[in-house]
Amino acid sequence: MDRISKSTRTKEQIIATALRLFAERGYEKTSMQDIASTLGMSKGGIYHHFKSKEEIIHLVRETKANRIKENLGKWMDIIVAQTAREKLTAILEKNIADEEAHAWDAAFSSQMKSADFILSIMKNSINDSAPVLSGILKEGLQDGSITTMYPDEAAEAFLLLMNIWCDPIIFEADEKKLIRRLKFVQAMMRSVGADIVSDEVIHETSALLKNLYVGDSERNAP
Amino acid sequence: MDRISKSTRTKEQIIATALRLFAERGYEKTSMQDIASTLGMSKGGIYHHFKSKEEIIHLVRETKANRIKENLGKWMDIIVAQTAREKLTAILEKNIADEEAHAWDAAFSSQMKSADFILSIMKNSINDSAPVLSGILKEGLQDGSITTMYPDEAAEAFLLLMNIWCDPIIFEADEKKLIRRLKFVQAMMRSVGADIVSDEVIHETSALLKNLYVGDSERNAP
Repeated sequence: MDRISKSTRTKEQIIATALRLFAERGYEKTSMQDIASTLGMSKGGIYHHFKSKEEIIHLVRETKANRIKENLGKWMDIIVAQTAREKLTAILEKNIADEEAHAWDAAFSSQMKSADFILSIMKNSINDSAPVLSGILKEGLQDGSITTMYPDEAAEAFLLLMNIWCDPIIFEADEKKLIRRLKFVQAMMRSVGADIVSDEVIHETSALLKNLYVGDSERNAP
Repeated sequence: MDRISKSTRTKEQIIATALRLFAERGYEKTSMQDIASTLGMSKGGIYHHFKSKEEIIHLVRETKANRIKENLGKWMDIIVAQTAREKLTAILEKNIADEEAHAWDAAFSSQMKSADFILSIMKNSINDSAPVLSGILKEGLQDGSITTMYPDEAAEAFLLLMNIWCDPIIFEADEKKLIRRLKFVQAMMRSVGADIVSDEVIHETSALLKNLYVGDSERNAP
């Protein structure tokens, strides 16, 4: 292994370990020393690769965004669906059933109240995810399974509402309130001509977010 | 005038002057010294009342939020409408025609990219404005002018989308894109049973935001 690939490998190990510790203990409560000790490295060894914990979480976020894109591509290939509408529903269901992604969410949950982090989720939703969603909605306009006059706008509004408003860590909500928000998004998308949110997605999302939320509260409890 | 009321009066003068300077020059380019000089005070005199420029803008925001509430109450009293739906449409039109509020918006426009500020707008929308809007939607359910099954959720989603997504300073949009977003919100609210966004609101909002946006770019130009 040459020096560059060894350095890349070490960085990947640091990121993987940091992600696991962030998920277990929360971002705030994980120190650079913790990451170093877990890897059997010196703290200086970590600082050789990353200037700060912020730089690690930044890279973790980027890695997560790339993983979402890869998964989406993979699912697009394997999902067999009659229409674009069915394909979208299946993608949303796969996304919510993705165990690996939830490990990432747990790592981020203690950060979910940070304004910078929330803004980065919103920007990702609009700039990265919305064009993909909108592309499939436009396929649906061709095959007749989608009828909205506003595919770009429906994609953006859907992702902002799902990723931000329906996150009970950002906008406090008990389970009942959360389910009502999810059902509103379902009804809204249906009524603008993009009936893509299945009851299963609502059920699984509320179960997942409830766990994340409870997990986070417990972790932060005194 | 006793000492306490004199101090309150000085604070109000500082806030009013700061607001005007923020609007004219932008928040970033206004210094505590500028505020002091404009008022003919010493810089120490300002620091006696406010620890920092951040504290001033924080109070400016609070004052703005209170003013919105006062205006809303005033309009509720003077608007004569047959139904709650018409009342809401009239309120949205009054809101967009409110010259004073636009002076505040101009003062804030250079801050609109700050994550903390965006989060504070979102929290205000959900915690302060949404309950008022939702209350009127519920009146509409009584008089039959509103039919949504989700008055609370429609109010929250409407305000988030209008205040955040439809702000071209936060989510870059040319005029065409902005109008499409506003029309989507109109169609969405109509199709969930809350037809409250008139064409006039769309027209006035896009004109207003366009000016704000252009004003901001020019101010920040080198």
